[in-house]
Order: sequence, then C-alpha cells, then structure tokens
Amino acid sequence: MGEFSQPARVADPGEGISVEELVLAARNHGMPLEALRYDLTPPGLHYLLIHYDIPALDTRTWRLTVGGRVGQPLTLDLDQLRRRPSKTVRVTMECAGNGRARLTPRPVSQPWLVEAVGTAEWTGVPLPDVLDEAGLDPSAVDVVFTGADHGVERGVEQDYQRSLSIDDATRPEMLLAYEMNGTPLLPQHGYPLRLIAPGWYGMAHVKWLRDISVVDARFTGYQQAVAYRLRRSADEPGEPVTRIRPRALLIPPGYPDFMSRTRIVRPGDHLLEGRAWSGQAPLTAVEVSTDGGLTWQPATMAEPGDHRWAWQRFTFPWRATPGQHTLSARAHDANRQTQPAEPAWNQGGFANNAIQRIRAVCLS
Amino acid sequence: MGEFSQPARVADPGEGISVEELVLAARNHGMPLEALRYDLTPPGLHYLLIHYDIPALDTRTWRLTVGGRVGQPLTLDLDQLRRRPSKTVRVTMECAGNGRARLTPRPVSQPWLVEAVGTAEWTGVPLPDVLDEAGLDPSAVDVVFTGADHGVERGVEQDYQRSLSIDDATRPEMLLAYEMNGTPLLPQHGYPLRLIAPGWYGMAHVKWLRDISVVDARFTGYQQAVAYRLRRSADEPGEPVTRIRPRALLIPPGYPDFMSRTRIVRPGDHLLEGRAWSGQAPLTAVEVSTDGGLTWQPATMAEPGDHRWAWQRFTFPWRATPGQHTLSARAHDANRQTQPAEPAWNQGGFANNAIQRIRAVCLS
Repeated sequence: MGEFSQPARVADPGEGISVEELVLAARNHGMPLEALRYDLTPPGLHYLLIHYDIPALDTRTWRLTVGGRVGQPLTLDLDQLRRRPSKTVRVTMECAGNGRARLTPRPVSQPWLVEAVGTAEWTGVPLPDVLDEAGLDPSAVDVVFTGADHGVERGVEQDYQRSLSIDDATRPEMLLAYEMNGTPLLPQHGYPLRLIAPGWYGMAHVKWLRDISVVDARFTGYQQAVAYRLRRSADEPGEPVTRIRPRALLIPPGYPDFMSRTRIVRPGDHLLEGRAWSGQAPLTAVEVSTDGGLTWQPATMAEPGDHRWAWQRFTFPWRATPGQHTLSARAHDANRQTQPAEPAWNQGGFANNAIQRIRAVCLS
Repeated sequence: MGEFSQPARVADPGEGISVEELVLAARNHGMPLEALRYDLTPPGLHYLLIHYDIPALDTRTWRLTVGGRVGQPLTLDLDQLRRRPSKTVRVTMECAGNGRARLTPRPVSQPWLVEAVGTAEWTGVPLPDVLDEAGLDPSAVDVVFTGADHGVERGVEQDYQRSLSIDDATRPEMLLAYEMNGTPLLPQHGYPLRLIAPGWYGMAHVKWLRDISVVDARFTGYQQAVAYRLRRSADEPGEPVTRIRPRALLIPPGYPDFMSRTRIVRPGDHLLEGRAWSGQAPLTAVEVSTDGGLTWQPATMAEPGDHRWAWQRFTFPWRATPGQHTLSARAHDANRQTQPAEPAWNQGGFANNAIQRIRAVCLS
C-alpha cells in the first residue's frame, strides 16, 4: 500500500498547498466566520472533517452493538435508542487540526486555517446509561467506539476507531446522539448515530457509530496511538490530543475584498462581536486588541447559562479611524490557560489555538 | 484600494495553492463525490460559492423591489410572495469556476477541482409572472438582479449584481425561490429569496435578492462585463459564461486512502454509478472508460422524467482485476457537445468540463 498511502510529512520551506491538500479542503469545510453570529450554527455551516467517505447507512439494518468486558452485551436498533430517556446538550466542536495550515513548516494534511468549528444541540441517550445497562466488568480500562467509515491512512487499513477511558466515558455529558438541532443527523454528521464528547476535539466524536467495545487494556488503535498525538518529532510517542484549548474568534467587521479577504470598515463606532470557548475549563475572560496585540482590553461576555460546553458571545466597542488595523481576541479559562501569539509547533499540526489576526482597512 | 484588492492573475509555473486561495477553499465547499448517490443533495453537501459575506437579513424589514422600465413598480414582502401561485423545479447547479484549479497555468481564485455541484428542489414564484405583473416597457433590454451581499472585487466596490436578457428572464423555468427542498432557504443559500436560473452556471442564481431592475441597455456591471467572461488573454472582451456545459461524474468506487484519495477496490464485479447533466441541451448518452480513456462504452441512463434541469443517474458494470485502473465518464448532449480530455484554458478558469479521472487500485 505504500505506493498510494504515504507516511505523514511536513511541507518544504515555501512549498505551497498541494493538490492533495486541496482535495481535502474541497471536501471538508470550515464555518465562514460571519456565522459566529448564530448561537447555533445553521445546517451546512458547521465544520466537517471526514477521514474516508460518508457511509450510506440504512436504519432498517443498522444496529449498535455494545460488547467486550460487559456483563450483558446489547444490540440496539434506532427505535430502541429513541425510546430511552434522552438528553440535549449544546456543544461547540472544533477540529483538532484547526490552525494546521498556519504552522511553519506546515504538516501536510487537511489544511485548516481557523474556521474548523461549529455549535449544535445534540439529542440522544446518555452514554453512561447504556454502559450501566451493559454492566462494566471490573477489568474494564477503555471503551472503544467504532464507526462505519472505512479507509486507509498512512498505510493502515481501518474502520475509524477512537477510545475513551472509563472515567471519561462515564461522565454525565457523554452522549449517543441521533439528532442535531432537533432533526435526525445529516449523513455527513454521522447518521444515524454518533458519539458526542463535549469539550473534546472533533476526533473523539465518532460518527456513524456501530459498535462500542469495553476492553481491559489501553486501546492502541491507529487514531489513538499513531494519529492525534502532540509530538515534536516523528519518533517520539507524544501526548494524546484530548480537550479543546481556549480560543476566541471575532466576526470580521465591515465587508471583505473577495480575494484577499481584507476587511473594509467605515470610520466611526463599531461593535465588535465574537465567540469564545474552552473544552478544558470554564472561561474567565476574553480580551480584544485593535493594535495588533500591543495592548489588550476586556470584552463584555454573555453568561454561559446552562451551556457549559458551548461558546459564549462577547462584544467590544471599537471606534475605527482611517488607516490599517489588526484586530484580535484571546480567551482565558479557569485553568489559567490562554492563547499564544505564535503557535507551538507539533508534527501533526494539532491544537493550534494561536490568536486570530484580522486585517482591517478603514477608508476615510 | 489597489493595495488590498489586486487585479486577477494566473499562478506562476509550479506555484502551489496560496494562502489566499486556501482561505476561499475553507469558506466555500464542494460536494463530496460520494454524495452523487443522492437524487437531492442533503443540506450542507450542496456546493457553496459566496463572493463576500453571508448577509444577515430580517424578513420583517426585507423587501423585494421591482422597478426600472416597468409600467408598475412593485414592493413585495415575503408573505406576499408566498401567497402567490408557486412552482417547484429540481435543478442541478454548478459553479462556473468548477475545475479551475486543474488548469495550467492556474487562474488564482476559488480553487475548485471538480466538486462544485449539487442538486435541490427549489420552490418559489415564477419570475415571468412577476415581470408580467410589473409590465415590461417596450424599451426593456436586460433585467438586473441585485443581492444584499456587498464587497470589493478587483478594486471595484459593489453589491453582487447579474443580469439576464428579456428572452432569458421570461423563460417559464426562471424562479424567485424561497424554499430549498421544502424548507426556507438556509442563510448561505440566499435567505430569504434568490433567483434560480435552471441550466445556468451558479453565478446567475443571485442570492439574497433584494431588487429587480429592468433596464433599456445591455447591463455592464462587474460580474457581467468584467468577471465571468471566457477570455484567452486579459485584454480581450471575451464571451459571457452562461449555461452549464455537459459533465458526467462517477461516484468513486471502493474506499479511499485518506491523503491521496486513491480508491482501493476488491477484485470482482462492481456497479459503477454516477450522475450527468448539461444546462445546454438534453443528454443523449453517457459513456464510461475503465482504461484511462483509450476505449469507451455506453452507460445505462435513468430517464430524466419531469426533471429536465436535474442530473441523471447512470450505471456501468465493471469487473475489477488486480492492478491500477483509471475510471472516467463523459456526457453527450443534444447539441452534440461532449467533454474534452484536456480543458480549453481561459483567463478566469471558467467552464472547465474536462473528463474526470479516478485512480483506483485493485488489490488481489
């Protein structure tokens, strides 16, 4: 398979985006940043990252199996899942590779800039309820989630699989979701069922879920032990990519130039607006800079309400004066984490939460 | 404005995709080709090309105005439009820039490969009915459609505007659409109202429509006279981009390699499947080649039924043998037009309907 499935690599200095990266960028898509205006991202604007193909699943034959180190294996169809007590959770989801194409050198993969995010309300069955019914064996260590999507990656043929530890899998917010914003999942979001792991980067939210297996040792599948690790070099084991680092994004103000996406604003008062989130801890503050990061001032944040796992709106009044401006925002969370001006590089290009920079030209 | 809004250019030989092109590719998105399996493209998988920002329109204040060389100018709100006799048309829409990034040299703009397509059922008021009510003046030459999207393009600040001739605008299939697949338009597809011009490339289907003006001379706005022209060099006026050239696309068989998107297939019988369309004339045939275009054989086509403006499904049985294969399909229409093996180059990178080539590896 090595002839068509190459090892991961980083781009050469000055190497432009390749056709292979562009093929991924044309399939997968980010959220246009003006869609930060919506509490819930409209269908079709939520980011998408699909490793292989969108499977065509038929709920007449589809089943979820739950097995491995459990007392009582289960086989459930969609109706059986829908008849159980359900729960709805509002979740901001972000791709672990968001920001990858801004790294130097650039890891060659899906070339995200900053838009791989979206927020939806997911409805389904709490995962702990299902695990409880199956009965976890005392030997249980990890829970492995298997999707119906199948392909080859870096020479390894696989169904998409990810695991969670027992501690993580039994948290009350973990969900087996069959609805997104009140309607059945769209094919590209995992129809008929997906895992929702609030606070985690997108790779954990296994789509087209078909099997849950409890295992008695750490899971070492490709997406857990090979991909989605934070590594400084290819030969170290690295740390796993888990929860979403804090990030704030501004809605680009004014209107754009088509090609450069430079923003044009009129002189005078503007209310800058954006959204911020962290999957690691509640937000404590958002700051805005209108001078390229030289000085920062606190933004006004909306209350999170019952939505711990969703982004929070923030606003900041700005008086634009003729000339060029660089607009930025940064989030702080209760773990005392914030966003760097320059990203820390890693081999896979994961978790780059470097501060957004918007170029705005104010015409007099 | 020249400092941030540059003239159009073509890439240097060997120049990779730039960050500016990638920013567009991350916002706009194609249809993953496995979605050719659906008669109607699910929400969020239909291609999108948005020149500026998605406007935030409020139907409490939004109005459609109809004016210019008419006997009776009109101002209509959404309820008034919805109360009129409506019509539903199934339409395959394709971006005029589809295939641009496959051209050499590459025109620098939204870097589409081949996925900028989708099919939906649009419901709305026939445009000829509204023009008839307003009453076209004998001096009428063109009908100009203005959207609420605003930006700068190649140094020209503008609302997005396109025109149709009176002959084209009064064709019975022309529609002012407020629903897509039975639900109100999504923000990114033109909410609350857009023009649907069946058979035309996407640039004609003006989104976020707010004004229709009848004029007594040929319209020379930017998107009509400067952009969307077929030119061999920058200094010629060129021919306008109008109706969609014939194209056939296969669903890539088997399963993919993540990065190269090479397809892996098993030896034995496969039913290749795809969709074909032409906005210029009804299709007469689709052919498939499994040997890189050396030989072609007819595919079996589904009947178009009542859907003249939508793609047609085709199938072709293929026995895969171990080794490498290049799979292609090409459409023929009643104007005796078909698809070239190599695209005819033009400055803007429009209407490239060169034959798709899918690389498949059959593992024994």
